Amino acid sequence: METAKLLWSRIPNSEDGELEGVGLLSTSNGNAVESLDYEVIENHAYREEQAQRGKLYVGYYVVVKWFFALLIGIGTGLAAVFINISVENFAGWKFALTFSIIQKSYLAGFVVYVLINLVLVFSSVYIVTHFAPAAAGSGIPEIKGYLNGLDIHGILLFRTLIGKIFGSIGSVGGGLALGKEGPLVHTGACIASLLGQGGSTKYHLSLRWLQVFKSDRDRRDLVTCGCAAGVAAAFRAPVGGVLFALEEVTSWWRSQLMWRVFFTSAIVAVVVRTAMGWCKSGKCGHFGSGGFIIWDTSDGQEDYSFEELLPMAVIGVIGGLLGALFNQLTLYITSWRRNYLHKNGNRVKIIEACLISVITSVISFGLPLLRKCSPCPESDPDSGIECPRPPGMYGNYFYCGKDKEYNDLATIFFNTQDDAIRNLFSANTIHEFSAQSLLTFLVMFYTLAVVTFGTAVPAGQFVPGIMIGSTYGRLVGMFVVNFYKKLNIEEGTYALLGAASFLGGSMRMTVSLCVITVEITNNLQLLPLIMLVLLISKAVGDAFNEGLYEEQARLRGIPLLESRPKYQMRKMTAKEACGNQKVVSFPRVVKVADVVSILRSNMHNGFPVLGGLVPPPIFVTDTILNGSFA
Amino acid sequence: METAKLLWSRIPNSEDGELEGVGLLSTSNGNAVESLDYEVIENHAYREEQAQRGKLYVGYYVVVKWFFALLIGIGTGLAAVFINISVENFAGWKFALTFSIIQKSYLAGFVVYVLINLVLVFSSVYIVTHFAPAAAGSGIPEIKGYLNGLDIHGILLFRTLIGKIFGSIGSVGGGLALGKEGPLVHTGACIASLLGQGGSTKYHLSLRWLQVFKSDRDRRDLVTCGCAAGVAAAFRAPVGGVLFALEEVTSWWRSQLMWRVFFTSAIVAVVVRTAMGWCKSGKCGHFGSGGFIIWDTSDGQEDYSFEELLPMAVIGVIGGLLGALFNQLTLYITSWRRNYLHKNGNRVKIIEACLISVITSVISFGLPLLRKCSPCPESDPDSGIECPRPPGMYGNYFYCGKDKEYNDLATIFFNTQDDAIRNLFSANTIHEFSAQSLLTFLVMFYTLAVVTFGTAVPAGQFVPGIMIGSTYGRLVGMFVVNFYKKLNIEEGTYALLGAASFLGGSMRMTVSLCVITVEITNNLQLLPLIMLVLLISKAVGDAFNEGLYEEQARLRGIPLLESRPKYQMRKMTAKEACGNQKVVSFPRVVKVADVVSILRSNMHNGFPVLGGLVPPPIFVTDTILNGSFA
Repeated sequence: METAKLLWSRIPNSEDGELEGVGLLSTSNGNAVESLDYEVIENHAYREEQAQRGKLYVGYYVVVKWFFALLIGIGTGLAAVFINISVENFAGWKFALTFSIIQKSYLAGFVVYVLINLVLVFSSVYIVTHFAPAAAGSGIPEIKGYLNGLDIHGILLFRTLIGKIFGSIGSVGGGLALGKEGPLVHTGACIASLLGQGGSTKYHLSLRWLQVFKSDRDRRDLVTCGCAAGVAAAFRAPVGGVLFALEEVTSWWRSQLMWRVFFTSAIVAVVVRTAMGWCKSGKCGHFGSGGFIIWDTSDGQEDYSFEELLPMAVIGVIGGLLGALFNQLTLYITSWRRNYLHKNGNRVKIIEACLISVITSVISFGLPLLRKCSPCPESDPDSGIECPRPPGMYGNYFYCGKDKEYNDLATIFFNTQDDAIRNLFSANTIHEFSAQSLLTFLVMFYTLAVVTFGTAVPAGQFVPGIMIGSTYGRLVGMFVVNFYKKLNIEEGTYALLGAASFLGGSMRMTVSLCVITVEITNNLQLLPLIMLVLLISKAVGDAFNEGLYEEQARLRGIPLLESRPKYQMRKMTAKEACGNQKVVSFPRVVKVADVVSILRSNMHNGFPVLGGLVPPPIFVTDTILNGSFA
Repeated sequence: METAKLLWSRIPNSEDGELEGVGLLSTSNGNAVESLDYEVIENHAYREEQAQRGKLYVGYYVVVKWFFALLIGIGTGLAAVFINISVENFAGWKFALTFSIIQKSYLAGFVVYVLINLVLVFSSVYIVTHFAPAAAGSGIPEIKGYLNGLDIHGILLFRTLIGKIFGSIGSVGGGLALGKEGPLVHTGACIASLLGQGGSTKYHLSLRWLQVFKSDRDRRDLVTCGCAAGVAAAFRAPVGGVLFALEEVTSWWRSQLMWRVFFTSAIVAVVVRTAMGWCKSGKCGHFGSGGFIIWDTSDGQEDYSFEELLPMAVIGVIGGLLGALFNQLTLYITSWRRNYLHKNGNRVKIIEACLISVITSVISFGLPLLRKCSPCPESDPDSGIECPRPPGMYGNYFYCGKDKEYNDLATIFFNTQDDAIRNLFSANTIHEFSAQSLLTFLVMFYTLAVVTFGTAVPAGQFVPGIMIGSTYGRLVGMFVVNFYKKLNIEEGTYALLGAASFLGGSMRMTVSLCVITVEITNNLQLLPLIMLVLLISKAVGDAFNEGLYEEQARLRGIPLLESRPKYQMRKMTAKEACGNQKVVSFPRVVKVADVVSILRSNMHNGFPVLGGLVPPPIFVTDTILNGSFA
């Protein structure tokens, strides 16, 4: 190397104290983050400590690691069960009450419905704004940032955990166009992080004998487990959880860790299954009638013919387009909120969320009123065609004048999201929905999902994505049924492909989404089709912008290091890369006193060593510096 | 750094010329391998070339990359379909003929059966020994080595591909205790590698316009795709293929590559599905009656109770023990073969394989004769219990005196492996097998699988592993059925768990095995149990030895770099690591002429730079050296 210089760019120190509790994310814009120390600093002190530790300590360390994986699994599983039971009961009770009232008066029912939603959403936004500001949103971009080496203050605190759990019960139970899956990932990560600290230090709940994980590396491993546990719990998809952690969030991965993550996911699956078995006896109210698979579509289409590949590709393209549009719109609206609306304090956030709640309630109650009820198809046991569950039954609360009628828009709009998706995915129900209803729902729900995104409540995008996707999927399916009349085509199958395509077009994951889709729908037969649709939608989406989480992370100022340098960086020199940053560098021969004083003047632990030919910067840790002074 | 020295150990040059065609693997013992250049060498020439290439070339490069992924998918899918059709037809025709003869004379049937098997196995071993020596075995350890950066001569040639395809038809069709899945992975890798070279140069089949992949890195990416395609085709498990490539074989992974691998797997799935749809009309003889899922167990146990977790854990422990034992025994026997038997030339290899074929035939024909036929259970449509398919029907060829009888040992031993596994996994068939039959089969088949391992035929260990595992799984299941009489327990479910446990105990994969198990059996309900069983069996197995592929790779002298240094390496110095190797090092100040002469004296491209404190050795590529000379 010709002229070795030691330099770094002066990044302003992070202002931890100021940021806490004020809603860190709105103030961070790329500067206020400090990176975590994942590299083991192999200096003299470290090696001495390693040598002192006996075999017993190493054994204890391994046992605690696995014990924590177990605890994370149990904790996240229980949190998921708690959230699910609460949401299902709040929502079920809400719909049942509204249903019983609207049989007498539509207006009274409407008022009650709006008020219940408002109270739930208000509780959620109040908790988030006054107690746990970091609990807003899905939390996945922040977790992604953390696992890529950035310490973003406040995202893994005990208060965030509590805010996330109770906030998402309120926001999902309140009928907003958002899901509880993203927040559950954050919940899992919080549980893991708190365990890693040995409890919450602030609330004096810490246990000293659990504080064996002092390094950022160990905590990162735990958070990875928590993240996988969250997905596993949210979708009852243990393998999907492992793959999500692998593909989407973490850039640090070892096969040893994979194994522990796998164990955590398995534990979650057992816990959730056990709880659901316990709930089957009716102890959990409205929750517990379903199986381990959330939306079982195994009775759908078994095979496909070549002619169908074209409409399926069309679904992929639509998914890519709508997904990319969703990312772009949410980016604009979040950035607007951040820069203008939310600067005016918590009051504005609360009013905003309540307003959106009222609008959502009005639309979801009002629009079905404009549709006429349709008569149920003749119940013919041979054809297998059946009526969507009659009104008042579990899963369909909308009141029609006659007994054998149903309101197709209400079965998806005036319903819990889980049941709406169940209706959209349902097989043997050709022409259950009119194209008009689906189109109305698609436009309205898409708009609501975009507008709701970025409000100060815990909000996931998985379930809204599935809703949107399955709606246009079913629309395409209806068209295909009319076009290829001879073929045995199920609209529900197209809805499933549509759901996969929208998620692919928005989140741009492939393998984990594919596995999650299979795990939540129990339809392995369609795997090749799901894969192809995902590939198309991801390719189309990538032509426009980055994935939802990457866009949001960039907006929040969370720099994510990509696995490879960009093409235009290939011919960049160090000088160009530094730009007009203030750079402190050493000359070739330097006094030790100068080095020490400059090292003392900042908090960094890593410094790039830049040679003449600019290979990718090598980060040198304290080791070598210590070495040179020794 | 105190005293920077440039040194390397003098590894003897690889003797490529001598090794070709003589059965490379038996001669390589850790020295005759040279590492591949995966790092991009960013010197002046490279950057000039990059700058010359226009945007058009980059576009062409990307298009060719994806086109190749498509071709690999189609090629591997077609190869798999061809192998499957051939094996099923050879085996089906063999059993049908034998069955028709034994109705007149057992002896004549026996002779015909032995002879057909012998001819098939002879053809396989002849092809391998005289034409494609690198096609012996499963090929997975070699592919694993290749993807970890080792060029092992001969494993990815055109002749190896041909030898692998036809050899595995012979060995699997000939009824040996081995599977066609491992060889299919190798087949996929060969197809990928040949495409990457633009065809086979030796046989003048190369196309110039396809030769855009000049770097080892691009070829490695293609081989990864091929590997995943192989698994996807072998098990009709596209997601399992992606994960197998990720977890087991490759240590170089980028999310960009994951996406391409995913695409290849999806293509394989579509090709295989299309071929199977075409075969359903009866054009493929004995093949094609099954669906996309190989062993559908979705009608098995739906739920489990807590009491069952104990016997399931027992299955995990048995799997770990038997798997570790299998690895150890095969290690001994392969090392013995390598050092003594196979040194005597091809004739010995042929005789050995033929002998094993005769022994296998005698055992599989003779042992069922010792068992009496059992009457079929009363066919009661309500209970769902049914007779294993009556003799002469597809899937059960053994002759019993009366019509409504079956021979339980014959349904698994005197049968194709696929059908045997189908019988072992079958639900609603309590007490189909006697404990005695299962135990006999377990002992005999385990022995046969161990003995067959390492003969000079293409041989996979997946299907034998599933056979062994499901046998003891079913045994445990029978015990559990007797013990917990009240519970609704399916023996087939326990067989499935057993299969997973043996594979976990032997191959030590978790996530990919789990997904493959689910994909081949279509039973998502049991996912948590499969995960737990796999975790237990892997943990138990790890206590004894390494995984099958790692052990075999070590035996063949393929050094696999682990992701982290071992614990005892932490305090090792460079001096100790070099041991008594002859090391050439430079003094601190050195003449350019000396450096050049020493660099010219060897073929290496990477040299460790060792500092005073011995951080993990940093491999410096030509870049920096070129830099210093410039």
